[in-house]
Amino acid sequence: MRGDGRQPRDLRPFAVTLQPNKYAEGSVLIEMGDTKVLCTATIEEKVPPFLKGQGKGWINAEYSMLPRATQVRNPRESVRGKLGGRTMEIQRLIGRALRSIVNLEALGERTIMLDCDVLQADGGTRTTSITGSFLALALAVHKLSAAGKFGAKYPLADYLASVSVGMLNGQALLDLNYEEDSKAKVDMNVVMTGQGAFVEVQGTGEDSPFARAELDAMLELAESGIGRLIAWQREVLGEAGLKIGGMQA
Amino acid sequence: MRGDGRQPRDLRPFAVTLQPNKYAEGSVLIEMGDTKVLCTATIEEKVPPFLKGQGKGWINAEYSMLPRATQVRNPRESVRGKLGGRTMEIQRLIGRALRSIVNLEALGERTIMLDCDVLQADGGTRTTSITGSFLALALAVHKLSAAGKFGAKYPLADYLASVSVGMLNGQALLDLNYEEDSKAKVDMNVVMTGQGAFVEVQGTGEDSPFARAELDAMLELAESGIGRLIAWQREVLGEAGLKIGGMQA
Amino acid sequence: MRGDGRQPRDLRPFAVTLQPNKYAEGSVLIEMGDTKVLCTATIEEKVPPFLKGQGKGWINAEYSMLPRATQVRNPRESVRGKLGGRTMEIQRLIGRALRSIVNLEALGERTIMLDCDVLQADGGTRTTSITGSFLALALAVHKLSAAGKFGAKYPLADYLASVSVGMLNGQALLDLNYEEDSKAKVDMNVVMTGQGAFVEVQGTGEDSPFARAELDAMLELAESGIGRLIAWQREVLGEAGLKIGGMQA
Amino acid sequence: MRGDGRQPRDLRPFAVTLQPNKYAEGSVLIEMGDTKVLCTATIEEKVPPFLKGQGKGWINAEYSMLPRATQVRNPRESVRGKLGGRTMEIQRLIGRALRSIVNLEALGERTIMLDCDVLQADGGTRTTSITGSFLALALAVHKLSAAGKFGAKYPLADYLASVSVGMLNGQALLDLNYEEDSKAKVDMNVVMTGQGAFVEVQGTGEDSPFARAELDAMLELAESGIGRLIAWQREVLGEAGLKIGGMQA
Amino acid sequence: MRGDGRQPRDLRPFAVTLQPNKYAEGSVLIEMGDTKVLCTATIEEKVPPFLKGQGKGWINAEYSMLPRATQVRNPRESVRGKLGGRTMEIQRLIGRALRSIVNLEALGERTIMLDCDVLQADGGTRTTSITGSFLALALAVHKLSAAGKFGAKYPLADYLASVSVGMLNGQALLDLNYEEDSKAKVDMNVVMTGQGAFVEVQGTGEDSPFARAELDAMLELAESGIGRLIAWQREVLGEAGLKIGGMQA
Amino acid sequence: MRGDGRQPRDLRPFAVTLQPNKYAEGSVLIEMGDTKVLCTATIEEKVPPFLKGQGKGWINAEYSMLPRATQVRNPRESVRGKLGGRTMEIQRLIGRALRSIVNLEALGERTIMLDCDVLQADGGTRTTSITGSFLALALAVHKLSAAGKFGAKYPLADYLASVSVGMLNGQALLDLNYEEDSKAKVDMNVVMTGQGAFVEVQGTGEDSPFARAELDAMLELAESGIGRLIAWQREVLGEAGLKIGGMQA
Repeated sequence: MRGDGRQPRDLRPFAVTLQPNKYAEGSVLIEMGDTKVLCTATIEEKVPPFLKGQGKGWINAEYSMLPRATQVRNPRESVRGKLGGRTMEIQRLIGRALRSIVNLEALGERTIMLDCDVLQADGGTRTTSITGSFLALALAVHKLSAAGKFGAKYPLADYLASVSVGMLNGQALLDLNYEEDSKAKVDMNVVMTGQGAFVEVQGTGEDSPFARAELDAMLELAESGIGRLIAWQREVLGEAGLKIGGMQA
Repeated sequence: MRGDGRQPRDLRPFAVTLQPNKYAEGSVLIEMGDTKVLCTATIEEKVPPFLKGQGKGWINAEYSMLPRATQVRNPRESVRGKLGGRTMEIQRLIGRALRSIVNLEALGERTIMLDCDVLQADGGTRTTSITGSFLALALAVHKLSAAGKFGAKYPLADYLASVSVGMLNGQALLDLNYEEDSKAKVDMNVVMTGQGAFVEVQGTGEDSPFARAELDAMLELAESGIGRLIAWQREVLGEAGLKIGGMQA
Repeated sequence: MRGDGRQPRDLRPFAVTLQPNKYAEGSVLIEMGDTKVLCTATIEEKVPPFLKGQGKGWINAEYSMLPRATQVRNPRESVRGKLGGRTMEIQRLIGRALRSIVNLEALGERTIMLDCDVLQADGGTRTTSITGSFLALALAVHKLSAAGKFGAKYPLADYLASVSVGMLNGQALLDLNYEEDSKAKVDMNVVMTGQGAFVEVQGTGEDSPFARAELDAMLELAESGIGRLIAWQREVLGEAGLKIGGMQA
Repeated sequence: MRGDGRQPRDLRPFAVTLQPNKYAEGSVLIEMGDTKVLCTATIEEKVPPFLKGQGKGWINAEYSMLPRATQVRNPRESVRGKLGGRTMEIQRLIGRALRSIVNLEALGERTIMLDCDVLQADGGTRTTSITGSFLALALAVHKLSAAGKFGAKYPLADYLASVSVGMLNGQALLDLNYEEDSKAKVDMNVVMTGQGAFVEVQGTGEDSPFARAELDAMLELAESGIGRLIAWQREVLGEAGLKIGGMQA
Repeated sequence: MRGDGRQPRDLRPFAVTLQPNKYAEGSVLIEMGDTKVLCTATIEEKVPPFLKGQGKGWINAEYSMLPRATQVRNPRESVRGKLGGRTMEIQRLIGRALRSIVNLEALGERTIMLDCDVLQADGGTRTTSITGSFLALALAVHKLSAAGKFGAKYPLADYLASVSVGMLNGQALLDLNYEEDSKAKVDMNVVMTGQGAFVEVQGTGEDSPFARAELDAMLELAESGIGRLIAWQREVLGEAGLKIGGMQA
Repeated sequence: MRGDGRQPRDLRPFAVTLQPNKYAEGSVLIEMGDTKVLCTATIEEKVPPFLKGQGKGWINAEYSMLPRATQVRNPRESVRGKLGGRTMEIQRLIGRALRSIVNLEALGERTIMLDCDVLQADGGTRTTSITGSFLALALAVHKLSAAGKFGAKYPLADYLASVSVGMLNGQALLDLNYEEDSKAKVDMNVVMTGQGAFVEVQGTGEDSPFARAELDAMLELAESGIGRLIAWQREVLGEAGLKIGGMQA
């Protein structure tokens, strides 16, 4: 049994508040255990310079932690004057993952910007940000759809969620909290679609290389956990998610 | 009557969640109408270089808005690589205001850093940040006090709260929301103590200079509003606030 | 009596050199006691992006201190790579104050940039910058007027000057020098128009909150001092100031 | 057959120049096809602040591309004033990968800094940087060892190499060049040790999610390619590599 | 005859105000025609890290132009967030030139910082800064000497001045103003000592390469002009310059 | 005799690799003794804003050293976030020198960017960069010419090379290596054309002023060394250099 009483295959309790922000076109406050991330989706009727005039849209993401989201206060990146490598790595990951299930032609010449702000961090902030920002994105796309902004194709080709897995004391564990994460010998983040395909697989054995069998065990756990998260996403979105996956991206 | 049904002397509905953050030594989520600010107090057992070895503590503050706290998304200052003038002005104000009621000798050689992060903005974010960060500060100081960290003097010499006032259509109004604020010809932020003394008075008539009588009317409104806020702070803090003001700062 | 022999209601000796700079459209070297500020006004036939095509002009200001303007040398902000909070706060104040007496429609689609460079600082650099940059602005506007650039309305609706006041040893003092400023328990900067209306009132009691009666005493002193400064400005500008205030801004 | 005549399981021709730099403690110029990276290892007898006094060493890495390493010239990051997200991501990966096979206690309180400068880029610059910087690291560690700087344990616990794999037209391909990389639907970078364990597995299906069978096919190819690279590394290092892997990291 | 009525060998009218700044240890306002530079010397009782504990001092220089020192306003480098190449080049030149006549051992473990701020620019700002900052340096050194801070050796080994020369319409001209400078085909800055030795010779023929005979003609003119400037410096410094050059640097 | 066995008038052994980079329009790897610089010329079919629509081209240059080009590793300027003064000074020099022999009208509305990256430094990196980047520029211009991009005038009016000279132990020396450079009392960089005209003369006597006779001796040595380098450049370029100097720039 794990420190917080979970079995290896258990996710932490998760919850979501829909539309907590009165201005954003889509927003959720997502919680995975004590990790809390506010995700907002902003629709901008323009695209980056490299896409102008091509009739395609774009999805972008930014990620940040409030200074006291963590046990020890972290200096603000705005005060240090630049983004750290970890932040850049994470926000590149979030944007890439979301784009994998978006049909950019169907979206039309507009950008949806996802902002993931971590209010409290207890492990898995990047995977929780992906799972939450998919919801915010779905709400914003639904709003555009309700306003008749799209043609025959719905821009979201599938659901998307993410979870972390790791090896600790020879055991594969699902959805690590901070304490587990800091002791794990392997740390892996997996992003998958509603159809069960992989979008990102990132495994790191900085403290200790890992064997193929361990990789397989972790992938299997991730697959199972993401399946449960996507089932929950369907429930949460309800009618706002009905058109998702109706066609290929 | 005002756009949201209030009388000129009315504050917006206000509320607070105590200790929403599991790591910070003091934290509150304060709401004034639709303005929501997360304030955390972090205790650091060190002081800035210019205070080293003097047996005195320090209070610092940082202020930031989430990108989609506003109707139109604001680019992150971390991405732009520097703090804007408005941010600097506000966080200097918050720090200065809080220090006015802290006895730095009694605090001892430590720093309390107040982080004010605006989750949603609807006017009055700087005044709400001051009122909220006073509460977070009081919770952190109470925690230190409970741990026996202080001598005879309690470091908080008084309560502190802040409110905005303005002139709109020839009428002095208390606690402006964003819509009122953007139309007001004069905008004024006032910070006062529990004893009714002024800590900051900042009135600006960029669009239109104002007369002495208008200044007096606004000050009177501010005094009344701050009195109500401080009464509420006393209630909210309860036992954690009992030692405040027991001696001069 | 004060350290430099003045009575509480006395301004320091003040003087101005008109057009010390051979390139600027308007320039003055203003002195208040040992505080010396070079103010230049530059006319640029363009406006910031947010004003384009609206037929309105803009007034902007920048403020800086030479490194050895002060007793101890200050590192240059260009070397540190960013503007400090104090600089930003001051230049925002100068721009805002000047705009309050300018009719931006009457100015037409052009920007006047005021540069305030402090050659020597002995207290009151921000208030002296405002008083001096009003003169530089008036000279530049007069030059445009002489060249027939305006219609029926003159863009300057009023005179403008500023002074500092403070409480020291229980006494309200006008126009603090550096030594007084560093000991004052309250520090206040006031900007007023030739009609006697307030444009900015900024009072700070960081070291000690202040009472309403003290605020009133300081405001009265400021009003008196600014009146004398504006009378002097009228004299200094002479013919170049005759059209000011001929209509509402 | 592939555009350059290779079979899917073929690596590009690879070559190395040992010690091309007369100052660095270890250096190699590595070539994988037309990708050329200069890797230097610098020994510094100090450690980062967070490791001081712990008797442990550190391995760090920096990565950069010369402006004309690519078909279209890239602006220098030194001119833009900040590192891009891609650079940060890559240099974090290189450092993490190398640390996985280093026994930091055995290294002693010193830092080895690996600089990977891409002189010409034709796909696989990050994996080639890892394979090459392992060689530069091994040369530097051998030099320290020859000078009697270590105790019983040799700081390098294993060999390390990296290669890219991808899915193109339904086929898994090893060691993609730039043309293949830009058309691949999945792109994956794998880092492995001489013992055949995984250190990093990073697979991305931005343009199209991928199935478990595809993941397996790519991993198998990577395993095979890395095996060949490590065999070559053993040959290249010769005597300088004999002590590697003699004990656990 | 030249545009301003001078002969080719004529300097522009020059003048100096001694000690215009009440705080600096040495200061001058120097004018060469319409070029006006405020030079201040600040004594700091510390040296840069690379000189600590060696019993030697250091001379440093910074150079800046006020935004409206020129016909067209230049954006501030503090606002742009970095120093431009021209500024860096000039301040490196000023520091290097001054150090050539300073005996750093005799100066003792202290730094003298020269700040050259151009109030108005009409050609020759870098050479005027050198000539002026030598005077400010001499005043500061004299002050230290009067306070008995030095041993047997006086830290200033010689006088130092600088002037520009150029080729225009086939004619070598001394001390170019802005109009001449912008049309000259060769531009040269020369720094020399009171003994007539060269400290810096920087000639540039960007628009047109130049012959050896032209170089010789320009050097001869520079030598003559600098001789006159150093004679004037001796007069200006009077007693404060008597000890200069009494020994070798 | 010198430390490396050379006579005072000897250049170090020099060599060049033509077109080492497969993407750049022109590229060379030039070696002067142990100094190795990779120079690439990139043609961009656009000009800087200040030249738009004038039918003229531009030549620009950037210079950088790899971190371990030197005995002690230098931090990257991209990591420090800004270019140092030395880098700016050198790249301004390279660009200026190259422009002196280019007919910008004949080049047409395009920019050629020269990148000089020092792989290994042993004195004379700026002069070697000029000599090498002239070759890269000539190759790129020849390529444009072969493609029929020019009219009657060839854009290169002459050859160009550069060398350093210095005074050491009372002796003028040609082409200083790092050891000599660090001990020399005078250091001078000279750039000349194939016609024997001067483009840049930069002599610095920071440690000790120098006499006119020393200046003359150094200039004579530089003239002789540059003559040899330009003869070699003619040989190296062969046919690619035949059109150079066929007309005035």
